[in-house]
Amino acid sequence: MDRVAVLGASGYAGALAAALLHRHPRFELTAITSRSDAGKRLDDLYPRHRVPLTMEELDLERHADGLDAAVVAYPHHAAAPTVAGLRERGVRVVDLSADFRLRDRDVYERWYGPHEAPALIGLAAYGLPELGYRDAIRTADVVANPGCFPTAALLGLAPLARAGLLADVVIDAKTGVSGAGRAATDETHFVSVAENVNAYKVGGHRHAPEIDQELALLGGPGPAHPVVFVPHLVPVDQGELISAYVKPTRDIGQAELSALYADAYAGEPFVELSERPPGMRDVTATNICRISVHGERHDGRVLVFAAIDNLWKGTSSQAVQNLNLMFGFDEGEGISL
Amino acid sequence: MDRVAVLGASGYAGALAAALLHRHPRFELTAITSRSDAGKRLDDLYPRHRVPLTMEELDLERHADGLDAAVVAYPHHAAAPTVAGLRERGVRVVDLSADFRLRDRDVYERWYGPHEAPALIGLAAYGLPELGYRDAIRTADVVANPGCFPTAALLGLAPLARAGLLADVVIDAKTGVSGAGRAATDETHFVSVAENVNAYKVGGHRHAPEIDQELALLGGPGPAHPVVFVPHLVPVDQGELISAYVKPTRDIGQAELSALYADAYAGEPFVELSERPPGMRDVTATNICRISVHGERHDGRVLVFAAIDNLWKGTSSQAVQNLNLMFGFDEGEGISL
Amino acid sequence: MDRVAVLGASGYAGALAAALLHRHPRFELTAITSRSDAGKRLDDLYPRHRVPLTMEELDLERHADGLDAAVVAYPHHAAAPTVAGLRERGVRVVDLSADFRLRDRDVYERWYGPHEAPALIGLAAYGLPELGYRDAIRTADVVANPGCFPTAALLGLAPLARAGLLADVVIDAKTGVSGAGRAATDETHFVSVAENVNAYKVGGHRHAPEIDQELALLGGPGPAHPVVFVPHLVPVDQGELISAYVKPTRDIGQAELSALYADAYAGEPFVELSERPPGMRDVTATNICRISVHGERHDGRVLVFAAIDNLWKGTSSQAVQNLNLMFGFDEGEGISL
Amino acid sequence: MDRVAVLGASGYAGALAAALLHRHPRFELTAITSRSDAGKRLDDLYPRHRVPLTMEELDLERHADGLDAAVVAYPHHAAAPTVAGLRERGVRVVDLSADFRLRDRDVYERWYGPHEAPALIGLAAYGLPELGYRDAIRTADVVANPGCFPTAALLGLAPLARAGLLADVVIDAKTGVSGAGRAATDETHFVSVAENVNAYKVGGHRHAPEIDQELALLGGPGPAHPVVFVPHLVPVDQGELISAYVKPTRDIGQAELSALYADAYAGEPFVELSERPPGMRDVTATNICRISVHGERHDGRVLVFAAIDNLWKGTSSQAVQNLNLMFGFDEGEGISL
Repeated sequence: MDRVAVLGASGYAGALAAALLHRHPRFELTAITSRSDAGKRLDDLYPRHRVPLTMEELDLERHADGLDAAVVAYPHHAAAPTVAGLRERGVRVVDLSADFRLRDRDVYERWYGPHEAPALIGLAAYGLPELGYRDAIRTADVVANPGCFPTAALLGLAPLARAGLLADVVIDAKTGVSGAGRAATDETHFVSVAENVNAYKVGGHRHAPEIDQELALLGGPGPAHPVVFVPHLVPVDQGELISAYVKPTRDIGQAELSALYADAYAGEPFVELSERPPGMRDVTATNICRISVHGERHDGRVLVFAAIDNLWKGTSSQAVQNLNLMFGFDEGEGISL
Repeated sequence: MDRVAVLGASGYAGALAAALLHRHPRFELTAITSRSDAGKRLDDLYPRHRVPLTMEELDLERHADGLDAAVVAYPHHAAAPTVAGLRERGVRVVDLSADFRLRDRDVYERWYGPHEAPALIGLAAYGLPELGYRDAIRTADVVANPGCFPTAALLGLAPLARAGLLADVVIDAKTGVSGAGRAATDETHFVSVAENVNAYKVGGHRHAPEIDQELALLGGPGPAHPVVFVPHLVPVDQGELISAYVKPTRDIGQAELSALYADAYAGEPFVELSERPPGMRDVTATNICRISVHGERHDGRVLVFAAIDNLWKGTSSQAVQNLNLMFGFDEGEGISL
Repeated sequence: MDRVAVLGASGYAGALAAALLHRHPRFELTAITSRSDAGKRLDDLYPRHRVPLTMEELDLERHADGLDAAVVAYPHHAAAPTVAGLRERGVRVVDLSADFRLRDRDVYERWYGPHEAPALIGLAAYGLPELGYRDAIRTADVVANPGCFPTAALLGLAPLARAGLLADVVIDAKTGVSGAGRAATDETHFVSVAENVNAYKVGGHRHAPEIDQELALLGGPGPAHPVVFVPHLVPVDQGELISAYVKPTRDIGQAELSALYADAYAGEPFVELSERPPGMRDVTATNICRISVHGERHDGRVLVFAAIDNLWKGTSSQAVQNLNLMFGFDEGEGISL
Repeated sequence: MDRVAVLGASGYAGALAAALLHRHPRFELTAITSRSDAGKRLDDLYPRHRVPLTMEELDLERHADGLDAAVVAYPHHAAAPTVAGLRERGVRVVDLSADFRLRDRDVYERWYGPHEAPALIGLAAYGLPELGYRDAIRTADVVANPGCFPTAALLGLAPLARAGLLADVVIDAKTGVSGAGRAATDETHFVSVAENVNAYKVGGHRHAPEIDQELALLGGPGPAHPVVFVPHLVPVDQGELISAYVKPTRDIGQAELSALYADAYAGEPFVELSERPPGMRDVTATNICRISVHGERHDGRVLVFAAIDNLWKGTSSQAVQNLNLMFGFDEGEGISL
């Protein structure tokens, strides 16, 4: 069995990745690390994940020895040098941070500040297999796991982008609280979230340039017409919904829209098309993105809704999907129902 | 004291209107009626409202006798003839239904079907005082209380509309479940709503033409450019947030935007401006609409967020605000903190 | 593969049983039936379960033909004659209703009214394997799947009952809303449940005599000292917690208590012991009952907390566990993580 | 108008007390203080409270000057010396902490550690007017505002205690998250609380000796038979329910029970009796305790349910009720509907 470690296992994303890999039939989870919770058992921190392993302080030499792959669940900036160190030691990496998602250093540094391993920029495969990156992922040393919002937004919009149909795009996103991570803050306190909904990061969210980058590669609308993207926090644990309001470049009927999406995702095991707008609950604890597309409105817009579980397809099960591709396993191994 | 009745008091909106009027210092709540729950006490149905009155079957003759005003909390179609009957008997009405909101019979019938009292169309005052209708409301026989979504959307967009700044508008609305009413359905079942968010009525929602009508009267964008409006259900009891994505007709900076809104709402007791995006919780159980406006984005849009309590400012406390105006009382009587 | 059907698949319990059996590696789910939703696809009603089968009206002759087993997810009274009909046709049954849980017809009829198939009373195995019923289940024609509250209460109290330690028992139970079933009612409306907790059926709940019956068989406290049992509804979808306050028949220290539970459940794959009080979330969507026991209190009581997912271990995954036993499969097939 | 300050206004309890006093018709809120948030406006921290005042660092000399009363919303230990300092300067105090609730220093120190102002122990009035303390509160320098759980438990059990009917009492309490305060912790994180219920402090909660002390004064059951008390955290913002399981000292029928409670609470403006078990929602944002009592059960127990809003009657509106008494105002001034 291939040996895998999860670095940063005490956060929500790392813990779920560890749980999925601990039960994975083809990988052996040999180590989990955490700076803040070293010495604690993961099943003490998260009983529901039932991973009976103890978190350790990372010792790159020791942990990389004999290791085939690692999931790095670090914050941006912190991830880059660790990813570089693992790569040097021949360990293939799925990086959950934003450090290698953006292909342009300037764009990265505008949104995130100085890059800690700029030599590796552009080297990683973008870990959204359904966007045409399967072959790149299979052979990659480093896979940059996409952000949760880009995952839903890009899967929702890719068919329109490829067809050159995106003239103008507004994305109103809604996310559950787990997307904010495990840090206990005023914003994640139950009392702040319950019976509440509010927009946040209205000045600009870091996932917007990631969406723009990938849409441009697919055919549009390009950096001159950036998507409008605003996230909202909703009183939900796990779940994410993007509502996209598209001004199409030409008139397009429902039948053509439906066919476009059916063609785009034929054979994709983790994309599901729906006639009704998907709900977050439809995809909780799955690696599935559920999408609906609606045309022929009196206002001329095309509407796209895409729901994912922000911790699964938005993060950790997508990481496992990528690992499966990297090691030649069935893409759904360990993450299918 | 002026005598008032609430017709249709067993639904969420009627019950709250009854509660507010029962404790109102200037009105005497003389009767509450309900078809489905006649004979039951309202404080048995809704202990939290503490209204120790028994609901009766409506007897128009008897109930209208000596009555000064009524709040009619009926479904559309059912409301119109009752409103007409009350008006004939000299009872002034705040109608919570959609029956008299749309000024154009054709538009009404396209969205709602045949009108049951077409002679009265256009006669009602539109019950959104902050939109310039205060004088009309003061003297009206019938006030058409606005829909909850139009209330938030119009208050959020009016300053831009009046300034001719609305080139294109997308409104993504989020509403708590009480907006769907008291009917127990698959959609309002706790299990359907918890840990879920989904769009609904994506083919077209009846509040869209109401928003278009009023925006056009304010100066834009006019029926040729209808707003894009899509509501979403969120796991919240009471609360509503509209997120409006505006393409402005010209460049406009944050300072000018802030001044525009400050001017528009100076002296308005129930509109609150905020620098941060408002949350639903900020206005729960109040008659307040809390608004933020954001410009100078890299994508050129102006963002507007407006939060209300769908049952209060969106419905029942707004009805009381209108009654206060109609009877010459202080506008906030019985509904201010 | 053994052929299995789920009768009554449109309710929460039946739908989950169908989902688990549809993906079960050893059973073939050949039919799902529903009176109210015949003709609809189950994945239309419950997208999240992803069962692409159409519900049919039950035709006992046709459906029983070649069928090895059935899960009957009917209300009590309705279940009994169908179970009898299946049994006559050689189909082994796990019955989710209460019809065959109580061994004494008088007790049944006192709590549920006239029994519809009294000849079968006492014939069914009680489907709680961890209580000592494994052998009976393996060979049973009919398994009476326990109620959700008895499942948690009995697993929580069995070690004390067997040791003769139960002098007096108060059980305060908390359940998520899915336990009330799919029927849309005032009580299951989101607005009634959110931000609320209340006791219900305080005059007596039908699960109390079931708990008493099984505790008596285990050694106490016996019908002369019935347990005090009161359920509460909490704003949770799936989940159940029983808090048991036990006056022990003799002083007993924490070490002995812990050893007693460790011995009782050594080797049980679906019982988990915890030092901290378990939370509902620890066991969501699992077949696990998580239990803690606490002694040495200043008030002399022994406290026991037991958490399950009311739809999984409390109902549908427990039904699959029973089917696994009946057909000689590994007990956790299709329901383990 | 009498001048009042709130010390510790940045926590949930202090902020609500400030909001209630800011709008109180008979008090002038002259200052609010906070160690952690000095310099911030309260309406920035809590928009929903709409208190346009800035929090200051406490300067006892300056703030006490000309001040008639203070609400001290400090943690225990921290409260005692500040209360003493205020008292020395002639400022009457309602103390929200536990520092002066327990009349016996030994009991206090066993549960809370060393007392910081032991000379004042026994001097404060216990601030539960409905328990017979009205006269003491009216003339008190210091009122020890009761804990939230004791408020509900004592109001629920007092009629039985006075009648000598309490042989044995188990109290299973459920509380919303605001009871845990504003501190952002793993336990108050939305993700920890949503879809979850768990018991906490099972080794002993500090409110238990407070309940025992007051029950003993009322007539039973006395320290030799302490109540069994266990709190549970539920996914609710504001709300508290105690479920009490009472073994009565003699048989007592429902009619006698109902009469006992009706007599006990006749004329009490803030106690409400209900035939059905009260829900938390029935009393949200009110100073009301809603109680039901149930007898004639087959298990011989008497059941009592009492619901309050933990932040209102459980804390801050009760503080205002006490202030009203202390200054000779109508007891419900500023806190009635």
